Amino acid sequence: MAGWEKMQRRTLWWDDLGFGLDTGDLVPDGWEENWGKMAQAALLAMERLESGAVANGTEQRRVGHYWLRAPELAPTEEIRLAIETTTARLRRFTAAIHGGKIMANGKKFSHLICVGIGGSVLGTQLFHGALAPANPPLIPFFMDNTDPEGMVRVLASIGKNLGTTLVIVASKSGTTPEPCNALQVIRQAMERDGLNLAERAVAITCSSSALDRQAEEEKWLERFPMWDWVGGRNSALSAVGLLPAALMGIDTESLLAGAAAMDRLGRSTGGRNPSLQLALAWYAATGGRGERAMVTIPYRDSLARFSPYLQQIVMESIGKRLDRNGKTVHQGLTVYGNRGSTDQHSYVQQLRDGPNNFFVNFIEVLRSPADGLNAATATAVAYLEGFYLGTRAALEEAGRPTLTVTLLELTPFSLGMLMALYERAVGIYGEFVNVNAYDQPGVEAGKRAADRFLRLKNDVETFLASAGKTAEEASAAAVAEALGRPEEEEMVYKWLAFLRAHS
Amino acid sequence: MAGWEKMQRRTLWWDDLGFGLDTGDLVPDGWEENWGKMAQAALLAMERLESGAVANGTEQRRVGHYWLRAPELAPTEEIRLAIETTTARLRRFTAAIHGGKIMANGKKFSHLICVGIGGSVLGTQLFHGALAPANPPLIPFFMDNTDPEGMVRVLASIGKNLGTTLVIVASKSGTTPEPCNALQVIRQAMERDGLNLAERAVAITCSSSALDRQAEEEKWLERFPMWDWVGGRNSALSAVGLLPAALMGIDTESLLAGAAAMDRLGRSTGGRNPSLQLALAWYAATGGRGERAMVTIPYRDSLARFSPYLQQIVMESIGKRLDRNGKTVHQGLTVYGNRGSTDQHSYVQQLRDGPNNFFVNFIEVLRSPADGLNAATATAVAYLEGFYLGTRAALEEAGRPTLTVTLLELTPFSLGMLMALYERAVGIYGEFVNVNAYDQPGVEAGKRAADRFLRLKNDVETFLASAGKTAEEASAAAVAEALGRPEEEEMVYKWLAFLRAHS
Repeated sequence: MAGWEKMQRRTLWWDDLGFGLDTGDLVPDGWEENWGKMAQAALLAMERLESGAVANGTEQRRVGHYWLRAPELAPTEEIRLAIETTTARLRRFTAAIHGGKIMANGKKFSHLICVGIGGSVLGTQLFHGALAPANPPLIPFFMDNTDPEGMVRVLASIGKNLGTTLVIVASKSGTTPEPCNALQVIRQAMERDGLNLAERAVAITCSSSALDRQAEEEKWLERFPMWDWVGGRNSALSAVGLLPAALMGIDTESLLAGAAAMDRLGRSTGGRNPSLQLALAWYAATGGRGERAMVTIPYRDSLARFSPYLQQIVMESIGKRLDRNGKTVHQGLTVYGNRGSTDQHSYVQQLRDGPNNFFVNFIEVLRSPADGLNAATATAVAYLEGFYLGTRAALEEAGRPTLTVTLLELTPFSLGMLMALYERAVGIYGEFVNVNAYDQPGVEAGKRAADRFLRLKNDVETFLASAGKTAEEASAAAVAEALGRPEEEEMVYKWLAFLRAHS
Repeated sequence: MAGWEKMQRRTLWWDDLGFGLDTGDLVPDGWEENWGKMAQAALLAMERLESGAVANGTEQRRVGHYWLRAPELAPTEEIRLAIETTTARLRRFTAAIHGGKIMANGKKFSHLICVGIGGSVLGTQLFHGALAPANPPLIPFFMDNTDPEGMVRVLASIGKNLGTTLVIVASKSGTTPEPCNALQVIRQAMERDGLNLAERAVAITCSSSALDRQAEEEKWLERFPMWDWVGGRNSALSAVGLLPAALMGIDTESLLAGAAAMDRLGRSTGGRNPSLQLALAWYAATGGRGERAMVTIPYRDSLARFSPYLQQIVMESIGKRLDRNGKTVHQGLTVYGNRGSTDQHSYVQQLRDGPNNFFVNFIEVLRSPADGLNAATATAVAYLEGFYLGTRAALEEAGRPTLTVTLLELTPFSLGMLMALYERAVGIYGEFVNVNAYDQPGVEAGKRAADRFLRLKNDVETFLASAGKTAEEASAAAVAEALGRPEEEEMVYKWLAFLRAHS
């Protein structure tokens, strides 16, 4: 009965919330002895963060996404008002769109394009998959990349409904190339159909950003704020995620209430703080060095977008070269996974028999709204539970650690809880390993390199034009030489291949 | 110019195929010296496998998925004929469906549900995302799990078109619970609407399997074969993937031709064998011990399903406890990833700054059919290429190894090449590390445990019924005791919680 005793010892369950956490073998008995101080320090740091201290050192910013679901905790009246008025404006705007008070020349809006990338859409995509009704008031599409084929496919799916399509552009700076490019593609498609983008566009961005100014000048339908105290990957419960969620017909008040309820648990000290226990489980599993990947398997099709969402929250927050003392640590916590039981027929073979270099984070949802519909669906959901239990047993038998987050049912409230659970666990784990969990310095290098290479592309094209040559006729060596950039010969070669492909 | 010299040395390019491979720094100079014998042995083993030797030792089976695109190489006349007649029947059936020769009481088929799990749909989902036209002749949906909510959502999306929906059930044994449960849900939904499943159903299964017999008895529209010499994860280019692909309007002849062309390259010896070079790169990156994960980032939205497909092919094939000598090795090669440049705004922060425990497998597609459409899409695709180059440079600068597979364009032919490239690389790598790349013994443990737990659920329900108790009234200890299974108390507890959630 070891398993059962262990479980009784480890399993936390909140009947009022329909939420539980079972960290299995991960958090050792008497963890307080070794880790109690570390835990206390982390909770104190979270308390300081929530009370408005500058927690993002490198960017000298407050970190306030917790205030979004508890404005009364905001450190200043100004911030509290900003949150409350924005939430109220979101609701009014959504009601006006749904009710037809705001229309696109005389027609009710029917479709929605969410333009953004990374933290500007990962949460929205999670909301869509997990909570959107089968026939939402606005049918959502996403442009979350700079791949024109993806954009053209979205426009093709929307087809002649483009005139009644609302476009939400979410970008803090408004200068991120991916959303800018997508916006241009939409603008040109609308102009081709004689449609005015401004009459169909909403901006979610920092005040007086390039996008904000553009939206103001062009008189877009609405502008909602992003704040420097909400990081992109923690913005799902700001206007960035709440506006599209509400437009899809999702109860955003319950989302916020669920997150707020989880935050309250997350402020408690000791054994019944689920975010603390989760962070301790990660610490135990990875030795605080990212030595194991966190394979995340929710046993629900509708949670298929949870792993990509969690992947960003965890890996962008914890994956750091330097700790806060400037020491090189190369910290990280790898996250991947799709869905159970589907994944059992994919990579669970390796999980059971291969390298023991991971732990599994199961997400169990007890109640299925679809069951009871008939005998067939009741059987199906019993198998779903059975496969979760069977896979967990097979992995533990092979010495692969697992933990399970249990939700009684999947609702806006419980998804809000789930998101807040991991947001805070990431914050606490960041304290454990002493990294700034709120910046992303490593992303800049790739952007700078891309800018350099894109300028080189223009130089190559300019040279070819002036030399009256086609990409086919030119050699990388000659062009690089002529540009006085022999060291860039490889990149010149790559761009010539690109230009040839498009000539 | 190190980068450029390295690249000239490493990059393989086939102009006639519009395909290239750049293994970067991974494969060392003079690899032949240390790895030449290993490579030769692997190619010999592949040759034996392709000539019909029993390559799946544990299951005493031939491994013949390469014959699917080159029937003339099949070891027996019987196998050759089986492949050719099946391909011909697939084409006739597809033409009859598209042409309305086969209809559902007088109406042309408009929708498609693909029922299957793991290897029975991962390839089909890849085909759908990568190649299906915006308005396919049959609109495809998938039931690839035993989650009733997912199934109900599919049925809701199909709505009143259920009568003109073709159902393809792919399952080797026909006893895999997930597809069986999905089939039951579809059957009941159809019966509720007075529709006859058999008039709309096609089976793809092993001859005289349970599913085959059922389809024969119920007189389903058609039955296509699966063969014991084609493993589930290598079945995408058999009827399992080709039938739904053809029904979606994808050119399956080109898919097969592309795979056959890559197979021809893969049979050459030495430096210009792309599958060998890819397998060598994996070996160099992971030390032949799975020490690095393969982060797979295709720079195309339409290839978003490639990583889950590759994840199964690689992890289920290589993730093994024992090598072929029965030695415990815990082999594996972890695969995860989504899409570029989207992932740059998610976990690339950790790739650049975090643990150096992975290598990146970029997939570059040079030509975008959507570009040239207008200035905006041309800009967008240039940025897509620029971000690939920038991310690659930033990672290599940080000492993170990368390799790049380049396609001139994404077509049925080039996707066929891509799939065959990795299929053979997996086979060769399996030889390098001496594992059976064609069985999946570790999956059984989870299934057996699930069966046991599902039987326990029935026992619990029977006991509650006989005792006239509800799940709320019963305690895990008492029920486990009464069942004479005190050791199963945890599982009884889990099932009581499940039953309470559904009462």
